[in-house]
Amino acid sequence: MKVNGTDYRTVWMEGSTVFMVEQNLLPFDFAIYRCMDYECTCEAIKTMIVRGAGAIGAAAGFAMAQAFVQNMKEKSADFLAKAKTDIEATRPTARNLFYAVDRVFNAGLQSVEHAIIEAQQIADEDAQSSRMIGQYGSELIHSGFAIETHCNAGWLAFVDYGTALSPIYTASEQGKEIFVYVDETRPRGQGARLTAWELANENIPHAIIPDNAGAHLMSLGKVDLMIVGADRIAMNGDVANKIGTLEKAIAAHYYGIPFYVAAPLSTFDPDCPAGNEIIIEERNKDEVRMQTGTDEKGNMHSVTVCHPGSKALNPAFDVTPASLITGIITERGIIKADEVEIGRFFG
Amino acid sequence: MKVNGTDYRTVWMEGSTVFMVEQNLLPFDFAIYRCMDYECTCEAIKTMIVRGAGAIGAAAGFAMAQAFVQNMKEKSADFLAKAKTDIEATRPTARNLFYAVDRVFNAGLQSVEHAIIEAQQIADEDAQSSRMIGQYGSELIHSGFAIETHCNAGWLAFVDYGTALSPIYTASEQGKEIFVYVDETRPRGQGARLTAWELANENIPHAIIPDNAGAHLMSLGKVDLMIVGADRIAMNGDVANKIGTLEKAIAAHYYGIPFYVAAPLSTFDPDCPAGNEIIIEERNKDEVRMQTGTDEKGNMHSVTVCHPGSKALNPAFDVTPASLITGIITERGIIKADEVEIGRFFG
Repeated sequence: MKVNGTDYRTVWMEGSTVFMVEQNLLPFDFAIYRCMDYECTCEAIKTMIVRGAGAIGAAAGFAMAQAFVQNMKEKSADFLAKAKTDIEATRPTARNLFYAVDRVFNAGLQSVEHAIIEAQQIADEDAQSSRMIGQYGSELIHSGFAIETHCNAGWLAFVDYGTALSPIYTASEQGKEIFVYVDETRPRGQGARLTAWELANENIPHAIIPDNAGAHLMSLGKVDLMIVGADRIAMNGDVANKIGTLEKAIAAHYYGIPFYVAAPLSTFDPDCPAGNEIIIEERNKDEVRMQTGTDEKGNMHSVTVCHPGSKALNPAFDVTPASLITGIITERGIIKADEVEIGRFFG
Repeated sequence: MKVNGTDYRTVWMEGSTVFMVEQNLLPFDFAIYRCMDYECTCEAIKTMIVRGAGAIGAAAGFAMAQAFVQNMKEKSADFLAKAKTDIEATRPTARNLFYAVDRVFNAGLQSVEHAIIEAQQIADEDAQSSRMIGQYGSELIHSGFAIETHCNAGWLAFVDYGTALSPIYTASEQGKEIFVYVDETRPRGQGARLTAWELANENIPHAIIPDNAGAHLMSLGKVDLMIVGADRIAMNGDVANKIGTLEKAIAAHYYGIPFYVAAPLSTFDPDCPAGNEIIIEERNKDEVRMQTGTDEKGNMHSVTVCHPGSKALNPAFDVTPASLITGIITERGIIKADEVEIGRFFG
């Protein structure tokens, strides 16, 4: 998608250097971060310079390819095994990460070139599947719709286009008049910072809302449709996604509002029979206790926004049961959550 | 309740001066704000130096008494009428405000002294009814319980003891072991700032959680009971309270977790038949777009935490339907929401 008139992807590799949009600086500054080795790329994933299911997957694939390049002289199986483990440990909830690392690792057993080609292929597939999710998902959106979304499942969370936002971009291209309620998505504010930034760049009317306001707007009949992304989907259709997704799904269910998850098929985890098996990452408590932003002079500050003597909890994800999900928008079409188990989209 | 070993009320009047705990400085600094006239007290209510249903009511009563003192020479009916309108306009969603202003206004028609005595009486009644709410509500709490609460309905929101937190304080006094999950309560963070500060001062174990984490903790069976306050209760049992209350009530209902509202009878509005008639205050958008806190040197900063070019919405309250409320804890006992209409507690 475009930034100031130039086309960008979220993450890409040239030679053995990985380039990423520095997402921790957004929406205040736009900069490109570069990593010369897999250790740097791992750190970028951990510190969320690159974040979001698809972008993490692509970055992890590139990191694995970097490890093969770094290992060209030594040809150490131990080095590759350690690299694989290191990359997998960066964000253990992200299904796409394991999928990408496995693919590049297996390709790299043939040759370093195969690893690089496979990593590029994963990134291209991600962009293409996001585009298809936009095509299928846009059929759910009618002109005049107000759509609520949580966190950032836009192009910044993938290689391009995004998942939850891709149908919105496509509907907008189709000339449909739409409005987007953007959950700010505490504690890290990916909605307020990234989704709002993306929508503004694409000239799509929107408003940031406190996460607390979702059910209120639904109760007033102001939300026609909710679309969110997914970090991992279990084989029974349960969905792990950003903390607060579950709460929105329960509220949408209560008010009879269609609640869709948009995710590529690579998000489905055949080894995960049900959502209660998904390990929920507990992140640094200071993400809850502090907030970072810019003052009126544009200087960045991290400030404590709570009682300094109190503890905090920071579960990064929650699991939404399949029974609360109207459908899952994939690159091959829209699946009912209870059809996941049948597996007819995995043939 | 105690602050650094000294007993304080949230708001009190000596002579014709109104004193208030400066709640905008909490939890970082503790200071007393004083107002010599009703205009100053109105401004203090508007800018949330004093906030919370009961404390607003008491402050509004004191403001009305101040207006009578200010009017002792002129004896202008117009001045008093304007003062009444000014005070009522400060926070139009707060039922207690209208109740207190009416009582003091009517008493003041007899004499200025009657107005002052009536205002003091309202404050004393508020403290006493909060104490009784604690007694009744503590019966719902068993040792080992984890209780979730939203916003601040503690002593800072009333004259003393509070409503939602009063049963927690009483249960703690009774020697019950309890743990409190404190919703941070975006956008203004009254949970993270005030409730956490109160609980820490009373040595009650607790953790601040993002508002998004409530349903997640409920889904894991970690929440035994939820208690919130109320800004206004309609005669059909619908409850207006801080934005996000509705979302928690829906989640608690979904998981079968008891959801109680704690409020004095003065919160019930006989002129309001149903919740959909309650006007929801839309507050300044910068409360969503910005956050104020202290840096590591203790300096306060207001920082922008969202995409600066995006709009925001900031509805301050929502309405929870009676059907989602297990019971309402009052100073005369616990009422089922559907008993409100019968009015047997208003005899």
